[in-house]
Amino acid sequence: MAQRARVLIDSIDERGLVYRISKVFFETGLNIDSNREFVDKEAGKFFMRSVVTGDFDEHRLQSDLEAVVPQGANVRVITPRRKRIVLMATKESHALGDILIRHADAELEAEIPVVIANRDTLRPLVERFEIPFVHIPAEGLSREEHEAKVLAELDKYDFDYIVLAKYMRILTPGFVSRYPGRILNIHHSFLPAFVGANPYKQAYERGVKIIGATAHFVTDDLDEGPIIAQDVIPVNHRFDWRDMQRAGRDVEKVVLSRALDLVLSDRVFIHGNKTIVF
Amino acid sequence: MAQRARVLIDSIDERGLVYRISKVFFETGLNIDSNREFVDKEAGKFFMRSVVTGDFDEHRLQSDLEAVVPQGANVRVITPRRKRIVLMATKESHALGDILIRHADAELEAEIPVVIANRDTLRPLVERFEIPFVHIPAEGLSREEHEAKVLAELDKYDFDYIVLAKYMRILTPGFVSRYPGRILNIHHSFLPAFVGANPYKQAYERGVKIIGATAHFVTDDLDEGPIIAQDVIPVNHRFDWRDMQRAGRDVEKVVLSRALDLVLSDRVFIHGNKTIVF
Amino acid sequence: MAQRARVLIDSIDERGLVYRISKVFFETGLNIDSNREFVDKEAGKFFMRSVVTGDFDEHRLQSDLEAVVPQGANVRVITPRRKRIVLMATKESHALGDILIRHADAELEAEIPVVIANRDTLRPLVERFEIPFVHIPAEGLSREEHEAKVLAELDKYDFDYIVLAKYMRILTPGFVSRYPGRILNIHHSFLPAFVGANPYKQAYERGVKIIGATAHFVTDDLDEGPIIAQDVIPVNHRFDWRDMQRAGRDVEKVVLSRALDLVLSDRVFIHGNKTIVF
Amino acid sequence: MAQRARVLIDSIDERGLVYRISKVFFETGLNIDSNREFVDKEAGKFFMRSVVTGDFDEHRLQSDLEAVVPQGANVRVITPRRKRIVLMATKESHALGDILIRHADAELEAEIPVVIANRDTLRPLVERFEIPFVHIPAEGLSREEHEAKVLAELDKYDFDYIVLAKYMRILTPGFVSRYPGRILNIHHSFLPAFVGANPYKQAYERGVKIIGATAHFVTDDLDEGPIIAQDVIPVNHRFDWRDMQRAGRDVEKVVLSRALDLVLSDRVFIHGNKTIVF
Repeated sequence: MAQRARVLIDSIDERGLVYRISKVFFETGLNIDSNREFVDKEAGKFFMRSVVTGDFDEHRLQSDLEAVVPQGANVRVITPRRKRIVLMATKESHALGDILIRHADAELEAEIPVVIANRDTLRPLVERFEIPFVHIPAEGLSREEHEAKVLAELDKYDFDYIVLAKYMRILTPGFVSRYPGRILNIHHSFLPAFVGANPYKQAYERGVKIIGATAHFVTDDLDEGPIIAQDVIPVNHRFDWRDMQRAGRDVEKVVLSRALDLVLSDRVFIHGNKTIVF
Repeated sequence: MAQRARVLIDSIDERGLVYRISKVFFETGLNIDSNREFVDKEAGKFFMRSVVTGDFDEHRLQSDLEAVVPQGANVRVITPRRKRIVLMATKESHALGDILIRHADAELEAEIPVVIANRDTLRPLVERFEIPFVHIPAEGLSREEHEAKVLAELDKYDFDYIVLAKYMRILTPGFVSRYPGRILNIHHSFLPAFVGANPYKQAYERGVKIIGATAHFVTDDLDEGPIIAQDVIPVNHRFDWRDMQRAGRDVEKVVLSRALDLVLSDRVFIHGNKTIVF
Repeated sequence: MAQRARVLIDSIDERGLVYRISKVFFETGLNIDSNREFVDKEAGKFFMRSVVTGDFDEHRLQSDLEAVVPQGANVRVITPRRKRIVLMATKESHALGDILIRHADAELEAEIPVVIANRDTLRPLVERFEIPFVHIPAEGLSREEHEAKVLAELDKYDFDYIVLAKYMRILTPGFVSRYPGRILNIHHSFLPAFVGANPYKQAYERGVKIIGATAHFVTDDLDEGPIIAQDVIPVNHRFDWRDMQRAGRDVEKVVLSRALDLVLSDRVFIHGNKTIVF
Repeated sequence: MAQRARVLIDSIDERGLVYRISKVFFETGLNIDSNREFVDKEAGKFFMRSVVTGDFDEHRLQSDLEAVVPQGANVRVITPRRKRIVLMATKESHALGDILIRHADAELEAEIPVVIANRDTLRPLVERFEIPFVHIPAEGLSREEHEAKVLAELDKYDFDYIVLAKYMRILTPGFVSRYPGRILNIHHSFLPAFVGANPYKQAYERGVKIIGATAHFVTDDLDEGPIIAQDVIPVNHRFDWRDMQRAGRDVEKVVLSRALDLVLSDRVFIHGNKTIVF
């Protein structure tokens, strides 16, 4: 019975790579439904995403491919399965709600084992969707103490990604390093403009005519991780910062959902501080 | 001495195609700088654009590739050369002027042997750039008589594409069929909205909140050819149709130039009434 | 105690109008927080929206203003109150869900007495938000018979607007004429492109590079009512029509919510087949 | 014989202002074709732009208005006349060329007495349009010495605005203070992202998915002046910084021209470090 797989390879660039890889596909009897490659000449790096169909053994394909790529290359043969994402939030409902609606509608290629929040505000919304909601208050705790509780909770679940849907606390390097390339965040500005707190107030003070939102992977540097998706909307002098915030919510939720879909469909490679999005 | 080529292949889809093509690249000793493929499953068609570098014989590569692709496949090995485009216009200067400025600045990957217009209005502008300007008036002539004169003029030049930079006359099927897939047009609306005459007046009457422009290949059906690029800008109730026209000019020239750059860099495949843009 | 009101006036244009109106504001002791006017010279029509604050009697202000505007002018003094909207839907959750989330978050300047649908699909989603859901099946009924049941249900509620959040049935002129200028619809295309059924399929067939959505008031002419808001997103050859539909949902919900906010904040005048949006 | 004027007023906010101003319009026998007001409550500032028609004496209207506005208010009665702009550039032709084409086409509401550049590169382009080109080299001169020569040249002309069409030198506070609110600049980034040198390189390094351009008034703070207009375009991992630069040129020229049109039509108020754009 024919099955389908997404094959993701990143490696140092080398002549004949595409030939050797496509040879494996051919000899395995696979059809290539789509195929995209990118070579970063400067960095000498090769990135490839293929969607293949046929009757194959997943592990065999994996090892056959590993046999033809350079030392240290990264080969992933991904067969269809719904990924699992843990959502973290604080009290704003727009980004979280958008994901919950998509999930309830089976539009999201993912399961949501739990929503963790540092406020109890969103419990009713989350429980409406029959998804476990865990409130871990931060009051009176050091950042490390609070994170220890969050990590203890996270350890109870098996998941692929953590999605910060307007989680308004800064994560420590210790926390982030536990999940390299696995934490997505939505920043409510067009990065790198307006890093840090209250970007809408900053945007208002600066008198910009366009505001935006940025979905990115979280790294140690606040708001400095690899950007996955960005979008913007026009504003004008009649917007005070709260109007900007209100208008910005639409962009935030759409950009986060778009980035999440890209990640869930295995279209995103992290390349240093950038992303390759196929 | 290493050279570079763009290799474009479109063909019926077949298992092993990528393998056989990349085998040719490999055995020719080529590096693949970039590579994009698309398979239209529904139509069973395969499209591929590769940029390769190495020391190779152009014709040899061409025939080696033709030997491995299916019957009726279309293989193009394109080595760097400035293409030649004939511009046709009427009296508006924005789209034409944008191309002339890019050309004068060597930003355009093309030569312009001549500009042909059915009005004399743009002569001073064109001659400022030391490009031949030929005025072929249509007054008192049938469409066929006028086109006969234009065709006679066109026959004097060797060119790859005809670019209609706001040429405000409709071409006959007879004219169009002479240059299949070689005539680009900018339509001053977001097709398929507002086909035909004065789209801005139509847009104004309809009270739209966004207007646009569409660059497309010209086919027999007026405004129905394969779309290469589109873009839009917001308008509001304070715009009368002339304001829309004025605002629209920016979109028209930018969209036409973007489409032209795509075509000149061999990124556009025509696929029935659509385009594949790599 | 100072209060606030939105004053909306549309009238035939006449010299001195602004003077006489602002005189009333002044003599009533009002501050003008914001003020926008538009004159359609062609139609000889005047439109004005002012936000005023002060200590005033609503009805007195209304009559004082009516005394200074031309015969047949339309004066509305609107003091803050949450409007009431009835939502109608079929089975898609994105547009409806977006409004429900905003409502649950008190972001929406409106109450929702009921959601009426011709399918039962969305009941769980709506009831999660503790909003009455009424299923009125159309199976085996003529359009008129079905609408009679819907009208009977609507008569039970006091509301300002009907919002068609992807209600996939066409309303009869008889139904529409019951609620002139009070029915909002989201059309899943960039009108006037692709009127009628399955615009995404049409867009895919046409090979457009941009798709959009249009929020408009419903009139007898299908998809021909006054446009309130529109927006677009880019697509490419890799999108089949289902991908376009999926991508389009984000635009649909955002455009509908934006239009709804404009209407709820009394920023929209209907002017023939167009809108003035302040 | 009826004439037309743009009336611009900015002042501290005060109850009755609109009434007193519209009273003057009424008693002068003027029709108000359009009228926009904005009150910055926080700053207690009032801004108004009216377009009036009628048979009036310009200076009389000016003094009548000044008699009814608060102390220190700024009243401008502007009757139609083509403004005069001096263009300054370095060697890139896209922004300058776009303005020259518009000017040659009488699309620009302005005269161009001279183009001043610190390189001779653009002389042929400018002289093609029969506009005086003055080359003032900076080689071997201190910033002050070079600016002294530029100022000496500027003193020969009567002009309203200086437009920096990709003038790649930083102006000293001394120079800027000579022309408060009269110098426009196009910055090749979406400010406040990527201030300073080579924004495209910065954008490439940061891996952004959108790039932009910003037109602003020049103040002492580099890239910190009041923003008039901004726009953006999407980019992706296939763009190196030169590709971004190439793509960005379209946005730069369009944004600068849009901002210039707004300024030339007297739609822009400077309000601290922001603009009010009517």
